[in-house]
Amino acid sequence: MNRANFGLIKLVTFETSGVKRLGALLENSIVDLCLADKSIPSDMKSFLSSTSNDKWTKVISVLNNFNNKRIPVENVKLKAPIDNPEKIICIGLNYKEHAIESKMPIPQEPIIFSKFNNSIASQGDDIVLPKDTDQVDYEVELVVVMGKQCKNVSEKEALNYVAGYTIGNDISARDLQLGRNNGGQWLRGKSCDTFAPIGPAIIVNPDIAALTDDIYFNPNSLSIKCTLNGQVVQNSTTKEFIFNVQKVISYLSSYMTLQPGDIIFTGTPSGVGFTRKPAIFLKSGDNIKCEIEELGVLVNNVK
Amino acid sequence: MNRANFGLIKLVTFETSGVKRLGALLENSIVDLCLADKSIPSDMKSFLSSTSNDKWTKVISVLNNFNNKRIPVENVKLKAPIDNPEKIICIGLNYKEHAIESKMPIPQEPIIFSKFNNSIASQGDDIVLPKDTDQVDYEVELVVVMGKQCKNVSEKEALNYVAGYTIGNDISARDLQLGRNNGGQWLRGKSCDTFAPIGPAIIVNPDIAALTDDIYFNPNSLSIKCTLNGQVVQNSTTKEFIFNVQKVISYLSSYMTLQPGDIIFTGTPSGVGFTRKPAIFLKSGDNIKCEIEELGVLVNNVK
Repeated sequence: MNRANFGLIKLVTFETSGVKRLGALLENSIVDLCLADKSIPSDMKSFLSSTSNDKWTKVISVLNNFNNKRIPVENVKLKAPIDNPEKIICIGLNYKEHAIESKMPIPQEPIIFSKFNNSIASQGDDIVLPKDTDQVDYEVELVVVMGKQCKNVSEKEALNYVAGYTIGNDISARDLQLGRNNGGQWLRGKSCDTFAPIGPAIIVNPDIAALTDDIYFNPNSLSIKCTLNGQVVQNSTTKEFIFNVQKVISYLSSYMTLQPGDIIFTGTPSGVGFTRKPAIFLKSGDNIKCEIEELGVLVNNVK
Repeated sequence: MNRANFGLIKLVTFETSGVKRLGALLENSIVDLCLADKSIPSDMKSFLSSTSNDKWTKVISVLNNFNNKRIPVENVKLKAPIDNPEKIICIGLNYKEHAIESKMPIPQEPIIFSKFNNSIASQGDDIVLPKDTDQVDYEVELVVVMGKQCKNVSEKEALNYVAGYTIGNDISARDLQLGRNNGGQWLRGKSCDTFAPIGPAIIVNPDIAALTDDIYFNPNSLSIKCTLNGQVVQNSTTKEFIFNVQKVISYLSSYMTLQPGDIIFTGTPSGVGFTRKPAIFLKSGDNIKCEIEELGVLVNNVK
């Protein structure tokens, strides 16, 4: 199917008149997919979970039809592309330089931890500092969004189960994560409300959308950057993954059934605040921009 | 409202003709709540999430009306009472003797970890041993089911947000949890498929159901027992909690917004397999019964 008109498909969840809708993001506008084609679900998880064979074809048809109404981006609120995944899985220490700066051993296998959905925040939302921490830190990460159920999938097949990719900021209260009486479990410091901004869009994996192979997208070769108050603090590439996206999915699926909509934070490169001398921790008024090649920019302020 | 007819309300999810339904469990029968009153949601999470003021009154009305059809329990399959919570939160080392047998420090604050929903299993389901572990262990636990959204709730108010209680078996692959290259994170060994059987019913907190105070239920004073192949291996009481249910909820809610349907595994008493000499680990054909006073018995076999 010809899709040169719009390049990679970018799915968003947007809010208009207080209602959340599934949309496709074009340059400066959004198409409400369900409004254009009533058979397309109006929310992201239902869309990703649908096993309808032609759901991607329908999206492409909508995008190729210029009669469908385009809503200017500035007229809507972009929401987290998905706010109800069954799982938020996070991979720890997946860039060598970050393991070294954190004074942790280089992982021999993917290190798995989690966040809960209460931590999900949207483009432009405030990251809220909890009361009993003064060591809140940023972590830009490539986030994988699963598109099909899988268990025991091979590395070779793994990317066929990916719906797409977005940007995440794995906000971490270091004192709650690493210190004080938590049994060594990172969850408490990782899953406070607003500690997982994601967005702005899910860049759809061309393979799962059953498109012609004129567009190629490699999640393991993307520049990745975090900017705090205008200063670049993390600047790397996903080429530096210790475990690439295929390996991570295959490994996770050997233990747990992955579901459409599950999201995987793939780890952060070096440059986080707590390892700096002097350390940098987030304070009210800070502005954080997380940027990944092809995926856009995720912007949040701290409150 | 008079409810002496049926004592504590027991909510179940059951499957009949391949469809999951919300029911109330009587001695040997189940009432299909939505069939009796169309305004009652037919699934547990929707029911718990409903903010309708009279939802509990409606359940009681259904139970008081003997014209409603009773389905013999043996004619249906009992399912996990809830299989799609937003969060499965687990408290580690919440009984002193278990911390001691595990050679871990007595916690000064609740230790928080998680499971994912893929681990949820039902009454009678097989617990499936994963390939790359030979140290799978049992852990009987009181499970709290949240009934209302809360954040920063006090200990005094905490139980007002509880929908009820069920039994859980926090199945744990000790080698994956405690050993080998996992960054010290327990999640991998805790969240394999089928590693969180829960059930058989949610015993409803009389306070949230706005009942008269003729029935009292104290989650912090229940006998709790696990039997493996007919041999009692754990035998304690929730009086031994280091952090009682109120404290756990208040603590969790200081970090994360809790939602209706969230479930909290409150920790296991001593007697688990890996601390025994010689150690006991689960093998195919084993039968595990988890029993808590007033809550029934949760039975699973190992495969």
